[in-house]
Amino acid sequence: MTDVVVIGAGQTPYGMFPHRTLKDLFCQASENAYASVEKGFNPAEIDEAFIGSMGTGGSQLGNFGPLMMESAGMVGAGGCHIENACGSGGFAFRAAYNAIASGRANIAVAAGIEKMSDLAREKNRLWLGVSGDTEWERLAGTNFPGIYGMIARRHMYEHGTTKAQITGVAVKNRGNAIANPKAQFRKELPLDAALKAPILADPFTLSDACGITDGAAMVILCRADMAKTFTDRPVKVIGSGVGTDFLAVHDRESATMLKAVRKAAKDAYAMAGIGPDQIDFAEVHDCFTIGEILSYADLGFCEPNQAGRLLEDGVTARDGKRPVNVSGGLIGKGHPIGATGIGQIYEIFNQLRGTAEGEGRQLAAPRRGLAHNVGGSGGSVAIHILEACE
Amino acid sequence: MTDVVVIGAGQTPYGMFPHRTLKDLFCQASENAYASVEKGFNPAEIDEAFIGSMGTGGSQLGNFGPLMMESAGMVGAGGCHIENACGSGGFAFRAAYNAIASGRANIAVAAGIEKMSDLAREKNRLWLGVSGDTEWERLAGTNFPGIYGMIARRHMYEHGTTKAQITGVAVKNRGNAIANPKAQFRKELPLDAALKAPILADPFTLSDACGITDGAAMVILCRADMAKTFTDRPVKVIGSGVGTDFLAVHDRESATMLKAVRKAAKDAYAMAGIGPDQIDFAEVHDCFTIGEILSYADLGFCEPNQAGRLLEDGVTARDGKRPVNVSGGLIGKGHPIGATGIGQIYEIFNQLRGTAEGEGRQLAAPRRGLAHNVGGSGGSVAIHILEACE
Repeated sequence: MTDVVVIGAGQTPYGMFPHRTLKDLFCQASENAYASVEKGFNPAEIDEAFIGSMGTGGSQLGNFGPLMMESAGMVGAGGCHIENACGSGGFAFRAAYNAIASGRANIAVAAGIEKMSDLAREKNRLWLGVSGDTEWERLAGTNFPGIYGMIARRHMYEHGTTKAQITGVAVKNRGNAIANPKAQFRKELPLDAALKAPILADPFTLSDACGITDGAAMVILCRADMAKTFTDRPVKVIGSGVGTDFLAVHDRESATMLKAVRKAAKDAYAMAGIGPDQIDFAEVHDCFTIGEILSYADLGFCEPNQAGRLLEDGVTARDGKRPVNVSGGLIGKGHPIGATGIGQIYEIFNQLRGTAEGEGRQLAAPRRGLAHNVGGSGGSVAIHILEACE
Repeated sequence: MTDVVVIGAGQTPYGMFPHRTLKDLFCQASENAYASVEKGFNPAEIDEAFIGSMGTGGSQLGNFGPLMMESAGMVGAGGCHIENACGSGGFAFRAAYNAIASGRANIAVAAGIEKMSDLAREKNRLWLGVSGDTEWERLAGTNFPGIYGMIARRHMYEHGTTKAQITGVAVKNRGNAIANPKAQFRKELPLDAALKAPILADPFTLSDACGITDGAAMVILCRADMAKTFTDRPVKVIGSGVGTDFLAVHDRESATMLKAVRKAAKDAYAMAGIGPDQIDFAEVHDCFTIGEILSYADLGFCEPNQAGRLLEDGVTARDGKRPVNVSGGLIGKGHPIGATGIGQIYEIFNQLRGTAEGEGRQLAAPRRGLAHNVGGSGGSVAIHILEACE
């Protein structure tokens, strides 16, 4: 099997850019990615591109992949639009990996994009709801704050997790975002203010949720044996796993463990030949604070009843033993749906080759990073493990 | 590189089923596919599924892949939704091929589905328009009959192609559909009636266009070295190629040759190590009659100025030297957008293993078939070549 490496990565700042177009954002992410390839990169060399997006700017579906590619000098290459709700980016990365490992492509691009500011706030709520189960959840009046809120309550009941531990995720990630120049929410969030914020859906306040975000990200992958013509610091893809589950939470085995994450993680670890202990840092899907707490156990970092404590003890803090969401995560950095999974790879790529932007953000020589990207409330999951080349 | 084969294929009848749900259609296609695996098949063995759809039942986007998988006993496997307009199915097949050839999956499924009857006729027109370029074509009032109509007029001007030759495609394909029990339009279409039908968009009458169709299709792929446990008659995937082009026709090099088809065909032939002469039959994308005429030259079956004659001389008729669209094609069999590319593979699989349904439809021991699936007016293209195993 062909080894695959990442040779470049780009990302727009995340934020609200109502005056900019999808093509404009996509172009910016691509220029940032091309410029990151140290020895130069010509987009005409791209064999195949995979573009993750959920809403495609208000469901302007229909050849969305090639449409975006027009703005990035990629016309002619193979190109495909991938939709797995908030996991679209992670699945685009998987597809790009597969295209190279299968022998079909030498150089492939995985990108993600979302422009949520094109829709009114109310429309975003309705639109995002379709990542869950329309028949059993959405039409019953449930939306994502409600679904994840119930999961959080259940976690507190089953595992003794406290509200302060759960909301601690937001405090940590908003703190991490301050130094990240590409993050959307760069302002400290004190725990007591977070706990006293307006109620969103019990037990959540507004501070427990990510916001509405525009943004795009892109990474460039190639066969490992070609990497040296592009960079002396490629980053190797050593693990890839995907999984799905019922969309409706009531159909699943458990409300407090995401089976699709466990399946995807198992496959990714098996491919990499390593266990959770060998992961130095991770970017995880904290669309709501409880999402990160769930990930700790589902990824094998601890038992479910220790997840709250892991946060509280600072193990996952930037200066902890295993930092999680040093970028700021979805809550601090922002969550432009389709771009999120690729933005995670962007962070891991830069951390692994020592080029993380922002003062004091660079971790001390990490060797392996894991990206955990979740579609809906766990309906689909893509997990990737990257490793710094010696 | 791992060799990949198709071991089973299923398809719903194509037609208008306003009373049926997407899940119901998907389930039917999956049961048909599972039953086609001669030595038995358990969907729990599926590692990864790729589901092509453009409209997802009125843009009910968000985890559309795993949502469909629930109805086919596939929950837990990896799963991904792929959108490339009318080429969604072909790109899903490509992704399933890649997943196995890359070593990530042993058994993968490629499926496609569309339920166009959920939308009013007027909405279908608007909705389908987004497969073209919204800024330059759709907002200028152009729709697909108009775009393909202009391409047809240009073909007549550049290459002397006659209207009777172009419309002859519909006569041939509607004729082929009569014997296909899963086709939507099973009624003879005489040439003079076709030419006298109401004008759609000059030079097209209503007879030059495909209809509005509901349907789903699914194929099962696996590593070649596992095939014998499932069937004694697997069909090998020997060629795969993809390409893109500008969505707006005016941005392209030529209006009468689809560069994305030529690129995808070149890659597929190179991978297979064969040329156009070694293709025994093909299923091509005749969303409008001119689409099939274009394909003859773009696939290398003839020069552009001979394409009309190829049809007229019966070379591509069911009893001709190289039959094209023996299934009835999009015009006769139907065109449920996301399902079409997979339905093409379904036909080729059955022809290659001698199980084509319908009286007199089985071709005499063909060895290789080609599937040509086009998104929009040529914005994205996927081409696959399958071969009967000895």
